[in-house]
Amino acid sequence: MTESANRALLPAGLRDMLPPDAEFEASVVHSLMSMFARHGYDRVKPPLIEFEESLLDGAGGGTSSQTFRVMDPMSQKMMGLRADMTPQVARIAATRLGSQPRPLRLSYAGQVLRVKGTQLRPERQFGQAGIELIGSDDAGADAEVLVMTAEALDDLGVPGVSADLALPTLVPAVFAAYGINGETADRLRAALDHKDSATVAAQGGAAAPLLQALIAAAGPAARALAELCALDLPPAAAAERDRLARVVELAGADLPSLTLTVDPVENRGFEYHTGLSFTLFARNMGAELGRGGRYQGGGGEPATGATLFMDSVLAALPGPKPAKRLFVPAGTPRAWAQAFRAQGWVTVSGLDPAADPQVEAKHQGCRHRLGPDGIVEVE
Amino acid sequence: MTESANRALLPAGLRDMLPPDAEFEASVVHSLMSMFARHGYDRVKPPLIEFEESLLDGAGGGTSSQTFRVMDPMSQKMMGLRADMTPQVARIAATRLGSQPRPLRLSYAGQVLRVKGTQLRPERQFGQAGIELIGSDDAGADAEVLVMTAEALDDLGVPGVSADLALPTLVPAVFAAYGINGETADRLRAALDHKDSATVAAQGGAAAPLLQALIAAAGPAARALAELCALDLPPAAAAERDRLARVVELAGADLPSLTLTVDPVENRGFEYHTGLSFTLFARNMGAELGRGGRYQGGGGEPATGATLFMDSVLAALPGPKPAKRLFVPAGTPRAWAQAFRAQGWVTVSGLDPAADPQVEAKHQGCRHRLGPDGIVEVE
Repeated sequence: MTESANRALLPAGLRDMLPPDAEFEASVVHSLMSMFARHGYDRVKPPLIEFEESLLDGAGGGTSSQTFRVMDPMSQKMMGLRADMTPQVARIAATRLGSQPRPLRLSYAGQVLRVKGTQLRPERQFGQAGIELIGSDDAGADAEVLVMTAEALDDLGVPGVSADLALPTLVPAVFAAYGINGETADRLRAALDHKDSATVAAQGGAAAPLLQALIAAAGPAARALAELCALDLPPAAAAERDRLARVVELAGADLPSLTLTVDPVENRGFEYHTGLSFTLFARNMGAELGRGGRYQGGGGEPATGATLFMDSVLAALPGPKPAKRLFVPAGTPRAWAQAFRAQGWVTVSGLDPAADPQVEAKHQGCRHRLGPDGIVEVE
Repeated sequence: MTESANRALLPAGLRDMLPPDAEFEASVVHSLMSMFARHGYDRVKPPLIEFEESLLDGAGGGTSSQTFRVMDPMSQKMMGLRADMTPQVARIAATRLGSQPRPLRLSYAGQVLRVKGTQLRPERQFGQAGIELIGSDDAGADAEVLVMTAEALDDLGVPGVSADLALPTLVPAVFAAYGINGETADRLRAALDHKDSATVAAQGGAAAPLLQALIAAAGPAARALAELCALDLPPAAAAERDRLARVVELAGADLPSLTLTVDPVENRGFEYHTGLSFTLFARNMGAELGRGGRYQGGGGEPATGATLFMDSVLAALPGPKPAKRLFVPAGTPRAWAQAFRAQGWVTVSGLDPAADPQVEAKHQGCRHRLGPDGIVEVE
């Protein structure tokens, strides 16, 4: 390996973004954050690194095994490099912005680092952009977060945006009503995760028919809701179903183009969620573009939010359009180049007054150059 | 201390940016990067973390004591959290973009982390935004980088932008010509750093008059250049002076409003620079807003670049203008709110259909709300 190849070697899962990708990512984040801002979401920016004890508090505990630690030489306490920004934003909402009026709408965008990649997401650094809506238990809050993130993806040009809705507290409510716990609950949970109706039938006891019906109800939102409404659910589960019905109705009115599916027994990745949750997808793409849902904010405050994963979002988009580059020879008055920039050109200045402008323009990837009589096309 | 205050405690030098500051910083970075892009600078984005051996290679070695390290569990090698992005961009230029045509123009923006803050910059995390112009030794390259960064600050609204020019190789060239080295050189270097003309006179030997004249020449660019031109400099030093004269001339033609000063013996902070360098300031502000200059790229390639420090840049700017917030009651058709957003309003949606719109609007900091007959002012 040459010295230069060696220097380019990066740890697995980390990479250099080159032109035009780096600019494209930044412009997509800018569009997303501008849209969130127009809906009254105010941006916050927590630090990349903070004390482990605050970073991994509450919902942040889920990222503990994924978090790099370093010692703070000033306090001699351990700090963690964030693996997820949402616990940080929840911390800000509960502490620094604890006395702000509710509902509180916050947005954020930034990089997160993880100790190891997963099969689905091998990257160990990626960008997050998201929103949190804190202090409202209304179904309108669930619908707003779902519709806004789906619409934001739609506006960016992501083809065929869909959302898969989940109710992570539904199965626990059924278990509680039927007195299912301990190892039986664990076995049933695993069977539900694998949509293993046979095991559910064998081990579900009195709850088996209901749990099997929940597995079978997965599918397009309208049909799933009809099936769920026909079931005799225990009260806590019925309340979740009614919330789901209301959110589907609100989202359908606001964004009729959004494809909604429901998986009533889905739980994976929503371990810290306390109510209606969702995963966003694009047509023909396996990787999820984002996820969100209800959680418990500081002091038990109701909250919901969603995060978009920039690596998947970029992969779902057609690439950026190439810029119109105009070569401006050395010595051209600055005001001339300025006028062309104001018209949308990218100007590339010549530095060597002796260079041939035609050759230089081509060399610099400019299909046009500024000649004595105006713009000249470069062959 | 309450539990909530405890959770808000961050390590010294790290902080949460709250509304409206976080959004303001992002918008300033966006403006800077857009300007760089319009001048043909293509954005790159290196990872936050990479192998220590590549991060601290070459010019990166200067940040070694400021760099947090973590072990990579995948490769069992040490990684460093970047304390400066410029060595990363130089690495990308030399390796991944090594075969791209020169001059190569790159831009970057991102966060850096440092083990300890300094008295002048107590922050341990701050944003950098900068440019690199690689592969040209022309004075036009030095002038382009200087003028672009100064003009970018000017465009943002920074009052009284000035640049202090330095020639970090000038004094070494004089030392070499007069055979000054070892401890004498160290003592003289320290005396020059403190503008201590008496010690220079006592210890400078045959070079003393010249070194004293260099100290005395510091000041506004026109006067400093006149004094430098009157001196009998050794050839290498004379070449640096001529480069300075040419850059001052080009920058004066391009951006006459830019105040330029020269300090011929300045060296601190430019230890890795190999030619004309500069520091950017704003009127009435002690902290530097950015710095730049010539350095040696990969394979000895000539290069120049500049970095802006976002914390100082933001401190030099008047704050952001507050947004026009319009409260839109729950149940308002989505298209209506959309129409107001298209007109520049930030819309804040009501979530509870039973809430009093007037009370809710006020509570949410909206000075206007959407009533049945259009926009209503909120008392």
